[in-house]
Amino acid sequence: MNSFKVGILGATGAVGQKFIRLLDQHPWFTITALGASTRSAGKQYKEASNWIENTPMPERVKNITVLECRSEKFQEVDFVFSGLDSSVATDIEADFAKAGIPVISNAKNYRTDPSVPLLIPEVNPDHIELINEQRFTDDGSGWIVTNPNCVAVPLTTSLKPLHDAFGIESVVVTSMQAISGAGYPGVPSLDIMGNVIPFIGGEESKIRQEPLKLLGKLHNGAVRYADFPVQATATRVPVINGHLLSVTVSLKQKAGLTKVREMMENWKSPIHDLNLPSAPKFPLKVHDDPRHPQPRIHADSDGGMQTAVGRIRQAHVMDVSYIAMAHNTVRGAAGGAILNAELLVQKGFLKVK
Amino acid sequence: MNSFKVGILGATGAVGQKFIRLLDQHPWFTITALGASTRSAGKQYKEASNWIENTPMPERVKNITVLECRSEKFQEVDFVFSGLDSSVATDIEADFAKAGIPVISNAKNYRTDPSVPLLIPEVNPDHIELINEQRFTDDGSGWIVTNPNCVAVPLTTSLKPLHDAFGIESVVVTSMQAISGAGYPGVPSLDIMGNVIPFIGGEESKIRQEPLKLLGKLHNGAVRYADFPVQATATRVPVINGHLLSVTVSLKQKAGLTKVREMMENWKSPIHDLNLPSAPKFPLKVHDDPRHPQPRIHADSDGGMQTAVGRIRQAHVMDVSYIAMAHNTVRGAAGGAILNAELLVQKGFLKVK
Amino acid sequence: MNSFKVGILGATGAVGQKFIRLLDQHPWFTITALGASTRSAGKQYKEASNWIENTPMPERVKNITVLECRSEKFQEVDFVFSGLDSSVATDIEADFAKAGIPVISNAKNYRTDPSVPLLIPEVNPDHIELINEQRFTDDGSGWIVTNPNCVAVPLTTSLKPLHDAFGIESVVVTSMQAISGAGYPGVPSLDIMGNVIPFIGGEESKIRQEPLKLLGKLHNGAVRYADFPVQATATRVPVINGHLLSVTVSLKQKAGLTKVREMMENWKSPIHDLNLPSAPKFPLKVHDDPRHPQPRIHADSDGGMQTAVGRIRQAHVMDVSYIAMAHNTVRGAAGGAILNAELLVQKGFLKVK
Amino acid sequence: MNSFKVGILGATGAVGQKFIRLLDQHPWFTITALGASTRSAGKQYKEASNWIENTPMPERVKNITVLECRSEKFQEVDFVFSGLDSSVATDIEADFAKAGIPVISNAKNYRTDPSVPLLIPEVNPDHIELINEQRFTDDGSGWIVTNPNCVAVPLTTSLKPLHDAFGIESVVVTSMQAISGAGYPGVPSLDIMGNVIPFIGGEESKIRQEPLKLLGKLHNGAVRYADFPVQATATRVPVINGHLLSVTVSLKQKAGLTKVREMMENWKSPIHDLNLPSAPKFPLKVHDDPRHPQPRIHADSDGGMQTAVGRIRQAHVMDVSYIAMAHNTVRGAAGGAILNAELLVQKGFLKVK
Repeated sequence: MNSFKVGILGATGAVGQKFIRLLDQHPWFTITALGASTRSAGKQYKEASNWIENTPMPERVKNITVLECRSEKFQEVDFVFSGLDSSVATDIEADFAKAGIPVISNAKNYRTDPSVPLLIPEVNPDHIELINEQRFTDDGSGWIVTNPNCVAVPLTTSLKPLHDAFGIESVVVTSMQAISGAGYPGVPSLDIMGNVIPFIGGEESKIRQEPLKLLGKLHNGAVRYADFPVQATATRVPVINGHLLSVTVSLKQKAGLTKVREMMENWKSPIHDLNLPSAPKFPLKVHDDPRHPQPRIHADSDGGMQTAVGRIRQAHVMDVSYIAMAHNTVRGAAGGAILNAELLVQKGFLKVK
Repeated sequence: MNSFKVGILGATGAVGQKFIRLLDQHPWFTITALGASTRSAGKQYKEASNWIENTPMPERVKNITVLECRSEKFQEVDFVFSGLDSSVATDIEADFAKAGIPVISNAKNYRTDPSVPLLIPEVNPDHIELINEQRFTDDGSGWIVTNPNCVAVPLTTSLKPLHDAFGIESVVVTSMQAISGAGYPGVPSLDIMGNVIPFIGGEESKIRQEPLKLLGKLHNGAVRYADFPVQATATRVPVINGHLLSVTVSLKQKAGLTKVREMMENWKSPIHDLNLPSAPKFPLKVHDDPRHPQPRIHADSDGGMQTAVGRIRQAHVMDVSYIAMAHNTVRGAAGGAILNAELLVQKGFLKVK
Repeated sequence: MNSFKVGILGATGAVGQKFIRLLDQHPWFTITALGASTRSAGKQYKEASNWIENTPMPERVKNITVLECRSEKFQEVDFVFSGLDSSVATDIEADFAKAGIPVISNAKNYRTDPSVPLLIPEVNPDHIELINEQRFTDDGSGWIVTNPNCVAVPLTTSLKPLHDAFGIESVVVTSMQAISGAGYPGVPSLDIMGNVIPFIGGEESKIRQEPLKLLGKLHNGAVRYADFPVQATATRVPVINGHLLSVTVSLKQKAGLTKVREMMENWKSPIHDLNLPSAPKFPLKVHDDPRHPQPRIHADSDGGMQTAVGRIRQAHVMDVSYIAMAHNTVRGAAGGAILNAELLVQKGFLKVK
Repeated sequence: MNSFKVGILGATGAVGQKFIRLLDQHPWFTITALGASTRSAGKQYKEASNWIENTPMPERVKNITVLECRSEKFQEVDFVFSGLDSSVATDIEADFAKAGIPVISNAKNYRTDPSVPLLIPEVNPDHIELINEQRFTDDGSGWIVTNPNCVAVPLTTSLKPLHDAFGIESVVVTSMQAISGAGYPGVPSLDIMGNVIPFIGGEESKIRQEPLKLLGKLHNGAVRYADFPVQATATRVPVINGHLLSVTVSLKQKAGLTKVREMMENWKSPIHDLNLPSAPKFPLKVHDDPRHPQPRIHADSDGGMQTAVGRIRQAHVMDVSYIAMAHNTVRGAAGGAILNAELLVQKGFLKVK
């Protein structure tokens, strides 16, 4: 396969850095352009960036001159990944799409747009057809695809086999979220060391809404949302990577614990046979040890792309309780976006110029 | 008031040490005897104990010779506090009660005994009448009173005004529990640093059952348990003191958020006017700041005896969601037992010999 | 004693908040004015401040209207405490001094000024005479006194008895500093959780220089600095409060371990008999347990105003090694400044208008 | 190369597990036997072991039946790695050596034995000749080689180029050691969360003595120890992996900072050209960023086998100060032992039976 030239928007931020780290050595995608704020533009990346990843900055990007995030600066790339802050993503991403440059975005801005796919390849790969409804360009060359919030990913992935088999009636979820989810500098150490903060601004509405689009059905070029209420409590805990969820579910069609477990254990991802480079071998892993999954131990499993589930049990209220966990900045952010791009390549939506 | 001579059973353990710390300077109770395992018996307390409290060991106890936990060794005391391990509490506590020495116990062993009060003074002070049903001695001089599990305390205290006003239909709760709840040495640092452990053995059944007895009605010398299901997920987080709960409640009689808040804010403890030395000024404190309560900041509020509540809000599933938090080793253990003893003094059950 | 009216400069910052907390209930000093940046000026303190102390904001200050830090706004106060950032302290503190308002400052700006006392009351109380050399005002009514860096305090306090008895030849010190020393928001949690940062900008030169002025001799209105080299390595560790130092000392006059210990244990502070309200009962406490002192357990000892020392032992290089520890934001900042003010009241330098 | 059959003694402990993890996929060594206490013997490894590594237990070892640590049970192996506790290592390791089974040990018991090499391949590879002095067997088939304490490794590795170029006069070192160094369950979380413990029993004497043997000269079948004093303070900090050292050194032959840096940066390991499988590409890495090295970020560099150095600077006392850091359970324990074995294979001391 020819290598794709890719640009990163928001390249100096925490998500941008994660894109750069994960794309180093990628078999299909080569970073050729980096975009950031006007403050960084014109500097070499190694000067512009306060590198916070735990592995060294890839040699390849060190001397790339950072560009302003304007589409005319990115004419050479085949598409861009966007790790832009939501305060600027609306206009910049539209500018790129209108210029015929596909945008694979981690920003929340277009997630609720009816013609923009909110995509987890293992959950709703067919939603990519929505791209055909977008009108950024006449020839369809420019469009936007988004990946979900970092809690919505393990929540929806773990609900998917249950929704397919029994239907979801309602969900109560409490999340314990890692500090890396707040970016850098993010959470002050004085706030979180030895502590729990029982509130994350703006988070709970995303947890409530995004699973409904993700589990929705594509029909005549539009997504019919799934229809069940989610009650979410989002908390921050002193963990570096990995959001852990305590989930209790009510099912439309009642089912015994054995059946529920079976559905989750035997669930097979619809993209399993595509062998996408970043796809986890086991997108949904069921743990038997009641002490598992744990964020520090299991967040990196399967390249950080796995949703781990444990403690599946009969609930005394509603029907089923379980724990779900995934790496928030890999599976829940940059890694999820990269997998989206891989699916879009495989399905012919992304092409080398 | 004459000073009571009190003994501590399990004096070298984490709960025993907390009793000793909290009773130092107590206006009514003076420690005169300390009991521990045969391994410690015969040593001075300062030699027998690996003191883990953050304040220095009280001078008073340093040179007390530790006794075996047998009632004949404790003839001088007016009553004992028990911080015994559950593996030995059944027999030892019965031995003391039969010998006419009242036992104010933090152990779980007798909590479910029909004639033993499971007591939170602010919630069910009338349950102390159960003492009259106990038959450890012919003359009623020996008996046992217990305090609840450290999660059951803030859960039940926060449910109490709602149960009284509207009736509880069902509860879904996820706890984030501090490491001090596991005693010493307790949780290995390698297990919990930067991590969450989504399971605590034996905890969830207590969280499910104890509120039902606490909110039960006393009738003809027996407690009629409250009748609602509780679905609990107990997790361990890297916090030193303070268990935080994410609670979602379904009410029997539907009520708007304003009414719910009002009930919690205006709730008045039935023991408010007794002025017990360890009673918190505000046993149930409602926070307005959505980031509150937090264990590190608020666990010590009101002498560590307060249940803090925050983020009261309409739920999208069931009816109401909120956060509750209390100090697990003070309010949820030794401090709760001391307040029980104070109530029992005030009500005439405990007397100086 | 009449109550002093005091102002706080930099009242919304971390040090300013600590002043407010420590001065609540102070027997001599009453806060009557609060100064902060122009951004905060005009607002009520409760609106202007992001309160980060673990105890509630004192009622007294909630409704005080924040002023700009200009001397003409503070005409009513008897003196001010300054918790100003060093970027603005030079001009503002001079403005107050010139206006005849004494400044008790925690900022570093005037610490090296030859006529400004750098003061630890237990170490160099006689240095306050330097005030007479200051020329901010003709009548001597306005002047500045400073307290040292938060590492310099326990280092100098622990060196003092050795310097007096044997003379210090040289010092090698490694500090492990708490996150609260960096203010708020300060150290990002992503940087420090489960980590050590082996560098704190600007810190090591203060550790090297301030002890020399503090241990210097006052002579003809000037301080003759002590003369010994200090090699310092300043690191940040995941601790909330309490800087811990690993100290190795070479003595001018060789002395056995017994003698060294004796000097430290028997050292008596020159202000011991003044009974200043914030003075610790034991300004230098020697621990015998080799595991002590520890920041989380001992930082709050004696009101947070104690320097704790442990592990005094013969060194294989140089002469003596020991551990020293003190609360960095109490003893090493706001609390130290308050004790300075108390000494200055007692010595007649501060007077009620 | 033929594959070696290796046994692990102490296979269920923390060090034993690290051996198993690191040897999974090893190109030369295949685990064929596992030894542990009599309590574990007879069980399958997956039953006997409380697996604490963050990666899954290798399939290969799960069903191996654990043996008692007696040489007659290990007749098939070519040699053993020992992660035995020091309380039992003396006798067991001698038993194996006498039975003709070479022991590559991480235990401290034989480190000071005159005929046992204490080995860091990059520092003193020639010391392996000491093996010829051992008399466990008549034919020289059984012998013991040890690797040093986890602090001694980065300390000695970083001193090596200075010792060679200038001679070491004396060293003052303060270590900040990770919790994994204490094994499992090891350090209670209640002791170390948000804290520093300024003492580690038995550690400082090893830090003082082991570098002298490691930097000693082999002469007539014996090591002449290097001769300089080391003053060590060993502390425990809330870090998971990676011991960080603050080092100050006095040199015999004075040298400017440029020269010192040059020696460290240009130092070339004597085993560099052997291409041993576990050898780090850069055994001594000099960092320029003053905030580096940091344990959480750099402990895993170069497979966890690198000693990282930073902040090399002129000292105000003695001559040079710097920071050193290495992964304590990889480079400082199991990984170091494996590299020792690789060198011994390459030098012909270890042979396939």
